[in-house]
Amino acid sequence: MTRPELEALDAFWRAANYLSVGQIYLMDNPLLTHPLRAEDVKPRLLGHWGTTPGLNLVYAHANRAIRERDLQAVYVMGPGHGGPGPNACAWLEGTYSELSPEIGPDGEGMRKLFRQFSFPGGVPSHCAPETPGSFHEGGELGYSLLHAYGAALDDPDLTVFCVVGDGEAETGPLATSWHVNKLINPATDGVVLPILQLNGYKIANPTVLARIPEPELLSLLRGYGYAPRVVAADVDTNPAVAHQDLAAALDASLDEIAAIRERARAGDLSRPAWPMIVLRTPKGWTGPPVVDGQQVEGTFRAHQVPLAATRTDDVHRATLEGWLRSYRPEELFDETGRPVAQVVSQVPAPPRRMSASPVAHGQRQLALDLPDFRDFAVDVERRGVSAHEATRVLGSFLRAVTERNLDRYLTFGPDEVASNRLQDVLEVGGRRWLAEVVDGDDRLSPRGRALELLSEHVCQGLLEGYLLTGRHGVFTCYEAFIHIVDSMFNQHAKWIEAKKKVPWRGRVPSLNYLLTSHVWRQDHNGSTHQDPGFLDVVMNKKPDVVRVYLPPDTNCLLTVMDHCLRSHDYVNVVVAGKQPQLDYLPMDEAVLHCERGIGIWDWAGTEQPGAAGEPDVVLACAGEIPTLETLAAASILRAELPDLTVRVVNVVDLMRLQPETEHPHGLPDREFDALFTTDRPVIFAFHGYPWLVHRLTYRRANHHGLHVRGYKENGTTTTPFDMVMLNDLDRYHLVLDVIDRVPGLGARAGGLRQRIVDARLRARAWTREHGEDIPEVAGWTWPAE
Amino acid sequence: MTRPELEALDAFWRAANYLSVGQIYLMDNPLLTHPLRAEDVKPRLLGHWGTTPGLNLVYAHANRAIRERDLQAVYVMGPGHGGPGPNACAWLEGTYSELSPEIGPDGEGMRKLFRQFSFPGGVPSHCAPETPGSFHEGGELGYSLLHAYGAALDDPDLTVFCVVGDGEAETGPLATSWHVNKLINPATDGVVLPILQLNGYKIANPTVLARIPEPELLSLLRGYGYAPRVVAADVDTNPAVAHQDLAAALDASLDEIAAIRERARAGDLSRPAWPMIVLRTPKGWTGPPVVDGQQVEGTFRAHQVPLAATRTDDVHRATLEGWLRSYRPEELFDETGRPVAQVVSQVPAPPRRMSASPVAHGQRQLALDLPDFRDFAVDVERRGVSAHEATRVLGSFLRAVTERNLDRYLTFGPDEVASNRLQDVLEVGGRRWLAEVVDGDDRLSPRGRALELLSEHVCQGLLEGYLLTGRHGVFTCYEAFIHIVDSMFNQHAKWIEAKKKVPWRGRVPSLNYLLTSHVWRQDHNGSTHQDPGFLDVVMNKKPDVVRVYLPPDTNCLLTVMDHCLRSHDYVNVVVAGKQPQLDYLPMDEAVLHCERGIGIWDWAGTEQPGAAGEPDVVLACAGEIPTLETLAAASILRAELPDLTVRVVNVVDLMRLQPETEHPHGLPDREFDALFTTDRPVIFAFHGYPWLVHRLTYRRANHHGLHVRGYKENGTTTTPFDMVMLNDLDRYHLVLDVIDRVPGLGARAGGLRQRIVDARLRARAWTREHGEDIPEVAGWTWPAE
Repeated sequence: MTRPELEALDAFWRAANYLSVGQIYLMDNPLLTHPLRAEDVKPRLLGHWGTTPGLNLVYAHANRAIRERDLQAVYVMGPGHGGPGPNACAWLEGTYSELSPEIGPDGEGMRKLFRQFSFPGGVPSHCAPETPGSFHEGGELGYSLLHAYGAALDDPDLTVFCVVGDGEAETGPLATSWHVNKLINPATDGVVLPILQLNGYKIANPTVLARIPEPELLSLLRGYGYAPRVVAADVDTNPAVAHQDLAAALDASLDEIAAIRERARAGDLSRPAWPMIVLRTPKGWTGPPVVDGQQVEGTFRAHQVPLAATRTDDVHRATLEGWLRSYRPEELFDETGRPVAQVVSQVPAPPRRMSASPVAHGQRQLALDLPDFRDFAVDVERRGVSAHEATRVLGSFLRAVTERNLDRYLTFGPDEVASNRLQDVLEVGGRRWLAEVVDGDDRLSPRGRALELLSEHVCQGLLEGYLLTGRHGVFTCYEAFIHIVDSMFNQHAKWIEAKKKVPWRGRVPSLNYLLTSHVWRQDHNGSTHQDPGFLDVVMNKKPDVVRVYLPPDTNCLLTVMDHCLRSHDYVNVVVAGKQPQLDYLPMDEAVLHCERGIGIWDWAGTEQPGAAGEPDVVLACAGEIPTLETLAAASILRAELPDLTVRVVNVVDLMRLQPETEHPHGLPDREFDALFTTDRPVIFAFHGYPWLVHRLTYRRANHHGLHVRGYKENGTTTTPFDMVMLNDLDRYHLVLDVIDRVPGLGARAGGLRQRIVDARLRARAWTREHGEDIPEVAGWTWPAE
Repeated sequence: MTRPELEALDAFWRAANYLSVGQIYLMDNPLLTHPLRAEDVKPRLLGHWGTTPGLNLVYAHANRAIRERDLQAVYVMGPGHGGPGPNACAWLEGTYSELSPEIGPDGEGMRKLFRQFSFPGGVPSHCAPETPGSFHEGGELGYSLLHAYGAALDDPDLTVFCVVGDGEAETGPLATSWHVNKLINPATDGVVLPILQLNGYKIANPTVLARIPEPELLSLLRGYGYAPRVVAADVDTNPAVAHQDLAAALDASLDEIAAIRERARAGDLSRPAWPMIVLRTPKGWTGPPVVDGQQVEGTFRAHQVPLAATRTDDVHRATLEGWLRSYRPEELFDETGRPVAQVVSQVPAPPRRMSASPVAHGQRQLALDLPDFRDFAVDVERRGVSAHEATRVLGSFLRAVTERNLDRYLTFGPDEVASNRLQDVLEVGGRRWLAEVVDGDDRLSPRGRALELLSEHVCQGLLEGYLLTGRHGVFTCYEAFIHIVDSMFNQHAKWIEAKKKVPWRGRVPSLNYLLTSHVWRQDHNGSTHQDPGFLDVVMNKKPDVVRVYLPPDTNCLLTVMDHCLRSHDYVNVVVAGKQPQLDYLPMDEAVLHCERGIGIWDWAGTEQPGAAGEPDVVLACAGEIPTLETLAAASILRAELPDLTVRVVNVVDLMRLQPETEHPHGLPDREFDALFTTDRPVIFAFHGYPWLVHRLTYRRANHHGLHVRGYKENGTTTTPFDMVMLNDLDRYHLVLDVIDRVPGLGARAGGLRQRIVDARLRARAWTREHGEDIPEVAGWTWPAE
């Protein structure tokens, strides 16, 4: 860097730091046109200074590289608590005022920029949807590198500067996400340049990676498959030296990456040691060195607000003023408060500004080219006779989706794509893999369209990054282990919810979970693999973001998944079986049923078509196995108690159960009552925990008549039918529930009751003796239609 | 190893492998006394063969070390899916028959051992409470090293052999848990010897760590702070060679560890490079090399059941028989089926058998010496006047707990111990830290009794290991981020539940969560830090395992925490504030109130003492902030509508709300009705998501009268009072709810209604203008008692 270049870059950095401090502290007097008064300072000081100068430093240097190399780049800030940094940079670049015209590009705009930060009605203190250029939430730590790699997948023109904090580096998800470099294709994916920012401290503790000897750290990073370059500064380092060092490291890294990509495009797809930078700078660099006699700069005390009493303590306030003036604002902003030409010279041309990236803002809309799912339908000549592995059929559909969308659709799974019967997807390029391959491996390829590491965190994080930058995907996971990413789901749902209120953000493709190997068919793995509670977690988020579908058969799964892939700004949770299961609905009926989300299955009940009046009992069901058991129960009732009128209601869209005031999919009370009656017993067989159905329906007229069977945490290694028996969800128990709850039926059906109890005991005993299910539960007698 | 030693060790390994294959396949004919018939084979073949021979290999070698060095050791099997292995070894050691006399030590016992495995009514296929010697659940992957280190903490006499699978090594929690060696004190903690088992494959994919060049792998492990030794075998390796190599590596590692510990006890507490072993063996080693023309041994196809059709396919069955006979069972078992002397020679003396470890079986009961929590009580002369930071006061109690229990109590936190105001705990030895220390660090020490890494997974996993081996602890965490360990909580709760049914397992101290920095006081961090949904996750587990407490003030927190620390076999979740909050109950009252778990606060309502009849309205509350707002609302009502009779009910123990049939703490209906009436409006201010209260109470008589306010996912960076207003939980809104729901009150209180609406709008506007709460909500007018 020449001296003028260095000076301009440093001016940008100082300006960003000035604006960052201003956001944390100032209500007014943004340009320090008069000495700082108590009332210029905010009454509540909220923000994280410690990480901010480092974020600004990397931003300034990234801008130099963007300008010199004409990069299309986005910025992922792992230590996203430092929200003042990206706000400041976006304002300096003019983006803030373009997106939010009320925050003008002058002194008055600066005042508003300061005031709104962490202020009621203003913007959050960390990277959030409101933060220009950001698509990585800055609240919960650990996912920066995953989001960065997710953004880079399939986007060969993109460079992602990813700052990894040494705090978040201690989290599990971050610790394993370094290995994602084994899934990156240097020819067809974009570039991620990780910058491990060692500022040494978390809230109160030092960080591990800053406190191991440098050779040990470099050994670790090389072991992760990187070629690290170290840039180090301490509180005594002249920033000019650090600027030169960082610029040199950045240039060398980007040159090396360019060479890697050139080799890859020439056909050498061997896995390179990817460049990365270790940036060691003091926490809270350029902030007050000492406060109240204690060292602050370069220690954990710089983490949040180094000067706590600036409103009441004159010394603190004087220190703050000195701190602000140390950036020489008079050299950075003109008398109207606008950044001077030297600062503006650092800003890339408009289409290249990171703060205005269409990729980060959901403005790149890449439509999916979807095949007609009806082409993959299974024939259903008679209901409940043929059987299919639902997810396997779905796999053939997803294979076609993959083929048609080679640059914008991916499947993610924690080593479960084939186990979950989606293996047809592997026919398109195989599994993504750039580590070593040996004889006997199954379809590993640098061009694979399925990405698998044994980490739900990795799958979720990569998919989030991929979606948030405009592409599409499915995450397939064992149902029980999706709880591993509960918190990531929460944060993503919150992001989507908050994003909807930001007018300049586009819509993003929905996050689609395909949960299979579910609670009722983990009988061979046992209790640890049995947990349907993710649905409960999901239902805590805002109704306009979350959707839950429980398709009862293969055709229903196809139409539901087609619907999910077309949707935006949702989290769709689809629970489906992978074992052979009976087919009930021809495709036309499946489409209609799933569009309605809930409906009476006339053919399964015993009401006379068109007859007035209400049935004696409603058998409701949601989920593959509950549907099977309900139909079998209905069949027993039809044969044994032909006078009893039974209605079968199947629920695909769980949200239909909620009141319409609670969820956009909620059924109006009138329609709910028409399905469930207002006073007849309802025996509801549910896939998950039974109380979830109660939670959704407690306001309904017939809630008192509702009796829900579901998983009640009775799990073990056993047979499939024993699993449903253990939880009283089996056909026999459903029949017993009917006998016990339909008024007067107990007396009439006493003999049947005993036979059912006996059949249940026999089934249990048979299983324990033979180690497999009693043959009579394999299907059920179904009357000809 | 001498040749006889080697042969005996190999015999033990072969015997364990034989018994493992037998468990997966055989119903009968355990000793192959006649050629294998179809009916000798189980109808459903369930199990994971691939990892099992490796587990048995390490077990056999660990036994050699135990005998030679008189080690007290436990075995943690990361690839715990290989449940047949530890079952086999426990049977060979005689432990299985001692613990489960129906599984005798002879041929008939062997038959039963085989048959029960993965069989209805039998034992699970993976490590579970039923597995002798195990305290690490083998279902969900990723926590082996954390459990191992947790067991080793404070137990200098213990050696933990910890097999880390290369599959689970890809998970986030495992990837970061290598760094726990920076928290291990070589003088006072036990030893963990990690054995990274590279068998190359997961379910269908290769593993990352097996497919990077060995120098890269070693670089990684050295970077994690270990000194790795490599032992490698492939399908062509003579096991005798592998035995010698592994024995040598084990000896060298244990010698080096002994030297490290000697240096440490002489005062050198610098962090060593801890020995570990990289064990590269073929997946499914010694199993059928080729099945149906495809290579199985050494590939992913060996993962589960290599021969799938042994009941129907004669070739498969012959292959199975050949496989079993390849272990030469006639040399391993005598004609009665008992292991021969050569095999038995490998078994350590009874007190040293890993399969009978009292440490693993919860049989080491280390009682806590608890100070009297009353000594830490705060004075409450007038209710609602003085204020304390509840967790800070608790910290002084926990400091005393720590001091009195230096070998059996620890506090864990993800860099939040001080942030959560428990810093007094740091007065006892500081924070545990063996990495580098520099000037300005705060109380880092190898002897620290608080363990902090920025990973909720690490905190949870270490605490689990510590508890499961008989010690006590608290995990303090920001409420929102405890979701990160939802799945670990689930698995721990399931383990405790299952453990209770195993007669030879002792009770283990409860897992105590102290959740603070909660949803209502994360107003400065914003939406990402606001999520009270962990309670919903917890409530899905079995009622006899989970407990939830919401102490409303400091004295209540003290008595609740004392109760939790005394308990066993539970997961206790305590949610408490860290900001100054008002004191309501003198300690005697607090004890009584928390023992009851729910009660009427006469002093807060307006019912006449001893008056008959029911109040006009019940204001119920659970949680610190809801209690504050409810009391303020009651105060407004008392002043403004003196004729209205208001009852205030405070809930500490959330489980009291459930029916007594659902939870041991559930209130009988009669008592519930006595508190909540059967027909009066109940305005319930709740800490978490409102529907949780509905879920708990939907069977109660007055459920229709219940109106719940809670967090409805409206979060952002704002002021504390604005947060409650955003979610309609504020005192003003509670008063509006009363006015709107007490029959006839709307007409009487029209003027008040408008004034309250105005006050609310004023509070909102003030906050947005000034950036802080309107002063009038800082407290409330409380009448003299």
